[in-house]
Amino acid sequence: MARFMHLISIDDLSKDDIMHILKRAEEFEDVARGLKRSKLLEGKILANLFFEPSTRTRMSFETAMKRLGGDVINMTAQEASSIAKGESLADTVRIISKYVDVIVIRHPLEGSARFASEHSEVPVINAGDGAGQHPTQTLLDLYTIMKECGRIEGLKVALMGDLKYSRTVHSLIKALNLFNNEIYLISPESLRLPEEFLEEIKAKEVTLDEVIDKIDVLYVTRIQKERFPDEEEYKKVAGSYRITAETLKRAREDLIIMHPLPRVDEIDVSVDKTKHAKYFDQAFYGVPVRMAILCEVLL
Amino acid sequence: MARFMHLISIDDLSKDDIMHILKRAEEFEDVARGLKRSKLLEGKILANLFFEPSTRTRMSFETAMKRLGGDVINMTAQEASSIAKGESLADTVRIISKYVDVIVIRHPLEGSARFASEHSEVPVINAGDGAGQHPTQTLLDLYTIMKECGRIEGLKVALMGDLKYSRTVHSLIKALNLFNNEIYLISPESLRLPEEFLEEIKAKEVTLDEVIDKIDVLYVTRIQKERFPDEEEYKKVAGSYRITAETLKRAREDLIIMHPLPRVDEIDVSVDKTKHAKYFDQAFYGVPVRMAILCEVLL
Amino acid sequence: MARFMHLISIDDLSKDDIMHILKRAEEFEDVARGLKRSKLLEGKILANLFFEPSTRTRMSFETAMKRLGGDVINMTAQEASSIAKGESLADTVRIISKYVDVIVIRHPLEGSARFASEHSEVPVINAGDGAGQHPTQTLLDLYTIMKECGRIEGLKVALMGDLKYSRTVHSLIKALNLFNNEIYLISPESLRLPEEFLEEIKAKEVTLDEVIDKIDVLYVTRIQKERFPDEEEYKKVAGSYRITAETLKRAREDLIIMHPLPRVDEIDVSVDKTKHAKYFDQAFYGVPVRMAILCEVLL
Repeated sequence: MARFMHLISIDDLSKDDIMHILKRAEEFEDVARGLKRSKLLEGKILANLFFEPSTRTRMSFETAMKRLGGDVINMTAQEASSIAKGESLADTVRIISKYVDVIVIRHPLEGSARFASEHSEVPVINAGDGAGQHPTQTLLDLYTIMKECGRIEGLKVALMGDLKYSRTVHSLIKALNLFNNEIYLISPESLRLPEEFLEEIKAKEVTLDEVIDKIDVLYVTRIQKERFPDEEEYKKVAGSYRITAETLKRAREDLIIMHPLPRVDEIDVSVDKTKHAKYFDQAFYGVPVRMAILCEVLL
Repeated sequence: MARFMHLISIDDLSKDDIMHILKRAEEFEDVARGLKRSKLLEGKILANLFFEPSTRTRMSFETAMKRLGGDVINMTAQEASSIAKGESLADTVRIISKYVDVIVIRHPLEGSARFASEHSEVPVINAGDGAGQHPTQTLLDLYTIMKECGRIEGLKVALMGDLKYSRTVHSLIKALNLFNNEIYLISPESLRLPEEFLEEIKAKEVTLDEVIDKIDVLYVTRIQKERFPDEEEYKKVAGSYRITAETLKRAREDLIIMHPLPRVDEIDVSVDKTKHAKYFDQAFYGVPVRMAILCEVLL
Repeated sequence: MARFMHLISIDDLSKDDIMHILKRAEEFEDVARGLKRSKLLEGKILANLFFEPSTRTRMSFETAMKRLGGDVINMTAQEASSIAKGESLADTVRIISKYVDVIVIRHPLEGSARFASEHSEVPVINAGDGAGQHPTQTLLDLYTIMKECGRIEGLKVALMGDLKYSRTVHSLIKALNLFNNEIYLISPESLRLPEEFLEEIKAKEVTLDEVIDKIDVLYVTRIQKERFPDEEEYKKVAGSYRITAETLKRAREDLIIMHPLPRVDEIDVSVDKTKHAKYFDQAFYGVPVRMAILCEVLL
């Protein structure tokens, strides 16, 4: 019996659900790496409904499905825009849910994944809906921490960059809090974590300098130019929230650096070769995690 | 031995051919629903050449092929426009027919599917060519009637909306006439069925009010804004050709409502929950029907 | 043991490597034609990263992979342009190489395939990088000659059209030279083969008239309008480098005509029906050749 039919928000999952998925993901690692074959999802079809592009997310869902023997149908960008013009999302989802076994949806509007799930005859997985949720990203973030730090509880985790608008950060903070981690917030004045989160969770606002020698995880996100009134201000801020090999001199041996990607300048390429860099592994971990989720809703 | 190599026009099929496909489709329903596995088309490859987008048609062909164990290669929209600029359709089809086992083509120009079939080494299926034909739509319409009314002969069928330009309506009318159904036409003055059809088939022009209590099938199509000289006129007409739950009060218990989709406003969402609404099932029926067609040309 | 991990340039291959691939391709012909089934690459995934469209190349790679039981993930054009804006090619390749087993890349910039291979954990195959290389095209050209002329050595081969900018021609000339063929060059003054090639290889500049009665292979390429300062000049030149059935009257019985396609006007359709026309077969031969290459790097 599946623990959930749809996966819309990380908030819908209990601590136990999360641990269940992470453990299942671990069993799929060899399949995800192409080292072991599986036909668990043979005969199943996934529809990727991406109303905005997200290469990594779409491709890793496609890889997850195909490595498990399933198949994938992608809606094209042109089809998406043609649908956006002429048909309700409800009708589209209703019809496509008659063709396939599971729908993965990405949509610019918050709430659209939940809305889609209400009109679907098959499981719907939210692959990001605007300012809303992106639960598979949160699960793969937790999985990365579990794999690279050995646990997901009792860690010191610093989140750095745009803490105001980043959907990824908001979901991750809640999950980290659920598992009793110590959370540090590092952001420019104008991109601080919204008050509503601070009421719910325990987190300290710090500078990277204050915590670099004690944190286990440094989660970096992009600071977007569009958030600033002028280019000068942006450059100044972005420059001081940039990680280089130099920045990491005082870091713990086993500090891991994560990033949801794509990165632009916020992590210098000099960091890539250090043992701290885990953001590319993090991207890979999306595959076994999505395998676990697909099996949960499909089997 | 296949009954036909290509499927270009519904007119190419005899009554017997049509019945053969509908019966075969019925055998594929469980596979289409993902309840039963099949590898009938394993090793076969279908190329979707869509020179204009048509989400439902493309996706249901892809589902049909994949649920039968076959595989699909989609031409992208960018590739389509690049071909449109630099290469003849004949050359494109000639080459792609050397890669795959069957070609499904959608093209804005009438006659292009037939033209493509003349340059292909493998079967070509017409998925709509401009004002021309869309035979798999007609077959799935007939299949829907067969499944939902229990037969496709001796029924009272009303076609409503744009009867002048709708390719779907023109093909369906001919097929309905072939099977001796009583046909009612409901359309605004300016969107009446062209004379040439009325000479060939028996059909009465009526109002919905006149026939709502006796028809078995109400087939609704969209009235497009572009057909009207001004917005006011369009709104007035569209408003009076709109189906609501209210409209159906005097309808027979077993009336079914069909629509080729996408719909905009011509069927109110209040109708969706009534037992009359069959347009979403109709969309699903495209899968087993296309399975039957693919098997006919491929095996 | 694979002879090479990546396939970036034809220059990376020895004569022996080339012969090895051509022979292997021959074994795959029946599978390529769909006459025989194979599961050699079952469980393997190929990612097509096309940063510019190339229908034939992409589709023939997809066919090759799928006919061998493997699967394919295509990056969409929208994703490509979104990557072009926001992320380095190095990061994209690094991540995608964690999802799949082999990457096929097409990119407008020369050198990008080699660059990609340096950041990939899996084999990278160059499917054309700007003015750079397109080694699978050269291999399928050689394969076509081998199949249609019975050998790839000691032949008289004329290359005609744009010999200055054509990447295809440059690679092929080197390969033909490697196998001791006699090379004739037929081009307008302004589109002559660059000096650097003439120093390396033996080739004679001739007119078609001078050699039409003795050549074994006539390889035609497109003359692009953009290369000429004015339309008049272009028309005059293009007109005199055009092949018609008439042109071939004095040709040897067994002359074969090749073209990398798409063609525009440089080969008249009247030639298509002659026994000389091999350009469509050439397109097909891309499939077994790419099968051989995929097996080389994946098994």
